[in-house]
Amino acid sequence: MALLVVGSVAYDSVETPYDRVEDALGGSATFFSAAASFFTPVHLVAVVGSDFQTAQVDFLRERGVDFSGLTIEEGKTFRWKGRYLENMVDRETIETQLNVFQDFNPILPASFCDDATVFLANIGPELQYHVVRQMHRPQFIAMDTMNYWIQGAPQELRRTLATVDALLINDSEVRELSGETSLLKGVKKIQTMGPKTLVVKKGENGAMLFHESDLFVCPAFPVDRVFDPTGAGDTFAGGFMGTISMKNDFSVATLRQAMVFATALASFAVEGFGVDRLRTLQKAAINQRVQRLYEMTHFELESLS
Amino acid sequence: MALLVVGSVAYDSVETPYDRVEDALGGSATFFSAAASFFTPVHLVAVVGSDFQTAQVDFLRERGVDFSGLTIEEGKTFRWKGRYLENMVDRETIETQLNVFQDFNPILPASFCDDATVFLANIGPELQYHVVRQMHRPQFIAMDTMNYWIQGAPQELRRTLATVDALLINDSEVRELSGETSLLKGVKKIQTMGPKTLVVKKGENGAMLFHESDLFVCPAFPVDRVFDPTGAGDTFAGGFMGTISMKNDFSVATLRQAMVFATALASFAVEGFGVDRLRTLQKAAINQRVQRLYEMTHFELESLS
Repeated sequence: MALLVVGSVAYDSVETPYDRVEDALGGSATFFSAAASFFTPVHLVAVVGSDFQTAQVDFLRERGVDFSGLTIEEGKTFRWKGRYLENMVDRETIETQLNVFQDFNPILPASFCDDATVFLANIGPELQYHVVRQMHRPQFIAMDTMNYWIQGAPQELRRTLATVDALLINDSEVRELSGETSLLKGVKKIQTMGPKTLVVKKGENGAMLFHESDLFVCPAFPVDRVFDPTGAGDTFAGGFMGTISMKNDFSVATLRQAMVFATALASFAVEGFGVDRLRTLQKAAINQRVQRLYEMTHFELESLS
Repeated sequence: MALLVVGSVAYDSVETPYDRVEDALGGSATFFSAAASFFTPVHLVAVVGSDFQTAQVDFLRERGVDFSGLTIEEGKTFRWKGRYLENMVDRETIETQLNVFQDFNPILPASFCDDATVFLANIGPELQYHVVRQMHRPQFIAMDTMNYWIQGAPQELRRTLATVDALLINDSEVRELSGETSLLKGVKKIQTMGPKTLVVKKGENGAMLFHESDLFVCPAFPVDRVFDPTGAGDTFAGGFMGTISMKNDFSVATLRQAMVFATALASFAVEGFGVDRLRTLQKAAINQRVQRLYEMTHFELESLS
């Protein structure tokens, strides 16, 4: 069963205190597909401009990403330019050129409408809703969002939230969306808005999976050097949804495994600019990090008598 | 075998956005003992003023804390007054009255000098060193420190660091002490200064154990409401060292278990003002949270084929 992703394909220009890159292949749907394609066939829906170099995504085609939902419009591809601060977490946007993305209207190819698992990457909530309405019988829909939509389109966001099974979100966004200072209270409140599953991403502090009343916590995989954090969240989402789609199972046990694969994938994403590291990545390296995450969290349970 | 702790016994006045308390029993040695006494006999060395109400520590005596190293000096007990901000993490000190603590000179009762495990709570590094020199054959020495000493007494701190097995420290202090932005690089650098074991505390983001090249990560236990974070770090240290002293074992397996008990204990500490919650705590409740931490981190290891 294929996994549908609707999001952006973009060119990112990134500066870090150590290095810089111009027009690196990026975008939420790109990072997502680069990760998910290790697990499952991916159906991608996005828009690019006539300047887009399609050969750049050949490596994704070879890994089973179907680009028949990629529209090429007259004009320029979405571009983002940003700078990371010394801590490699905080960043400032230097420039956002929406270009052809401004009029993005995701129309799914007919064959994509039967996909069982769906990821709505970080696009406007009204577009996300429009995608959901085109699906025939989706079994598991997950979505991303950000502060921009939480503030700017709260009603549209609530309407989309009510239709999804899972929300992937940063810890600060949990507080913003729920209005609660306590993360736990915030999560419970958001669960009443629709998604029974919440994945709370905390960067170098790992991620938490709330599934109904179950809680699973996965540490980040520690990397020696963060090269470029751009796309880590979308790569995480790709590993998460990829695992679920591969197993075609939505149990807590699978969701937990999906968290761990997601964590491993995200750790590779930050080790290169854009999708560079994900391009050459091998399954053996992914398995090795999953094994190490297991070892990092294992202890012998004993009681105090 | 008993566990020695040298630190402070104090009265804390704490304000939070929700509540306040005046002159609550606190101090690093108090929180530490309140936690460690669930696991092992504790030998406490500290100083208080003539205003100290000794009956307040009767509950610790009953749990096997030996106060023969508590000196009572003419004058007032150490007092700290602070205010927590809305996020219940950041705080500002309103007033610090060192009082009799200013001239604290820890002289160990003769019988304490044979203790196998030692915790040097957050006091001046020259006092910590003075304690180490009085020990006969300690098997495992751990210490705490803070930015005040990292900045103000770097040489004394390095001398003490060279004598200990373990350092318990916050993540921001790792960066300060090592001068490295990367946590991993910072930890490796500090390991060359003496302690082969580093426990990096990250508050609500859990704690990491670095033991030589081994890494263990433990999430924080999520509590519904943080009442007062004061003393959480010392309580964590008490749970950690208590476990090690109880087992009289210094293997990685024991250190990992110690991290989990420490995490459970710290989660109780924040649920009341001062040591209130630790006063009434029962072993069954500790075991329950350890069990839940096990469940929170467990997943079935599987490879991507």
